[in-house]
Amino acid sequence: MPPTETFPHATSTALSTVESHQTPQDLIFYAGWWCPFAHRSWIALEEKGIPYQYKEVNPFKKEKHFLDINPRGLVPAIEYQGKALFESLVLCEFLEDAYPNHKPSILPGDAYTKAHARIWTDFAGKTLAPGFMRLLMAQGQEKQDVARTELYDAIRKFSAQIKGPYFLGEEFSLVDIAIAPWVVRDFIAAEHRGYSRSDVGTEWKQYAEHVEQRGSVLRTKSDLDKYAENWVPYLKDEAQSQFAIALRAGRAIP
Amino acid sequence: MPPTETFPHATSTALSTVESHQTPQDLIFYAGWWCPFAHRSWIALEEKGIPYQYKEVNPFKKEKHFLDINPRGLVPAIEYQGKALFESLVLCEFLEDAYPNHKPSILPGDAYTKAHARIWTDFAGKTLAPGFMRLLMAQGQEKQDVARTELYDAIRKFSAQIKGPYFLGEEFSLVDIAIAPWVVRDFIAAEHRGYSRSDVGTEWKQYAEHVEQRGSVLRTKSDLDKYAENWVPYLKDEAQSQFAIALRAGRAIP
Repeated sequence: MPPTETFPHATSTALSTVESHQTPQDLIFYAGWWCPFAHRSWIALEEKGIPYQYKEVNPFKKEKHFLDINPRGLVPAIEYQGKALFESLVLCEFLEDAYPNHKPSILPGDAYTKAHARIWTDFAGKTLAPGFMRLLMAQGQEKQDVARTELYDAIRKFSAQIKGPYFLGEEFSLVDIAIAPWVVRDFIAAEHRGYSRSDVGTEWKQYAEHVEQRGSVLRTKSDLDKYAENWVPYLKDEAQSQFAIALRAGRAIP
Repeated sequence: MPPTETFPHATSTALSTVESHQTPQDLIFYAGWWCPFAHRSWIALEEKGIPYQYKEVNPFKKEKHFLDINPRGLVPAIEYQGKALFESLVLCEFLEDAYPNHKPSILPGDAYTKAHARIWTDFAGKTLAPGFMRLLMAQGQEKQDVARTELYDAIRKFSAQIKGPYFLGEEFSLVDIAIAPWVVRDFIAAEHRGYSRSDVGTEWKQYAEHVEQRGSVLRTKSDLDKYAENWVPYLKDEAQSQFAIALRAGRAIP
């Protein structure tokens, strides 16, 4: 049976962050503490210190106003001066464009380096994130081995480009944000799917440790056991999220 | 048998454009006249009037220098002051960032509208383009019917957002560029897969007619019969491009 509820709110440091972002603001951030895509945009908001009001969306009981502004009903979404925007990475770019005076920037100023960052952000979104999900959803030793090998190959391509400590060097950027939520959750793949950061490689292990210690990542992190509970349906390949359905059908992530 | 050659150069107006872009420049554009992804970046170059040197890449005989700067070997790629960049839509954004004084802009200045444009550019890239390819590659009436229905549904979602004459209104933008190469080539789906612009809807038909008449689209267009020849392996589902392989495996477009 697919689940019909999810734990209703963030926990741990993420809960404190939610509680300190309840005042109405120009920007309302609709998120789910459990959602790795929402987690990206949340990290970007925290990274840039943008004023926002956090609203938790229960994926099984979506409120009318949320569906009115955002008919697809997916988190993350932003309501900005009464108008809705969605898509986690588009939202991050939007924050950069709409709040140019909020530093640090999450994209480099130089056009070439910015394009380089976008190439690898795209890779994290189109290849790494689905690779983690496919590994978690894979049933049986043989399929898990195939999925793990495919994921390791992809991470190693990415790792070969890491300058350290972050992807582009000293500056934490959109590339790091695009993969951070899966770094935070990769312990689930370690516990259930034989994944190991060290087996992928030293660069990846060190990089992952730097990313998970970033302030904006820590401030948006819930209890690990709550993440683990949330992924149980994926581990059984019973998840009915649009993401899981798309992956099974071999379609792009919605 | 998969093909081992492709027609060696652009034809028609695209050939004239190639011939007038042979002088060495800061920006070298590596493309294939046949490639819809390269076509996007080419339209952006033409749209913005950026000085570039066009180099045709034969997909079956890639030159050493091209592979040295761009190990994945995919077109389109740009060599800019000796450094390589790739990914068709990232290249378009790069042109916008690196040549801010070349007008028109292909992205709106307002942050909200820019994010709206990126959401639908993303949709064109992740859903519409693969939808056209899946329809062309589908074998047998039943699979073709499923693929056509899925494509029509996706185009109608997109069409519902068209302001006209272009996606965002009067301004031709990245959204239009992201889908234009498939508009130029949709006659192949009409001839072989029962696709019809009118069946999709009036908004789509009118939009497609505006897009294919845009100067930058016309200047980069080869003879239709050459496009048709190039797609024969796709229609037989024998294409061995990385794109075709990824689609068959249910993976993101590389």
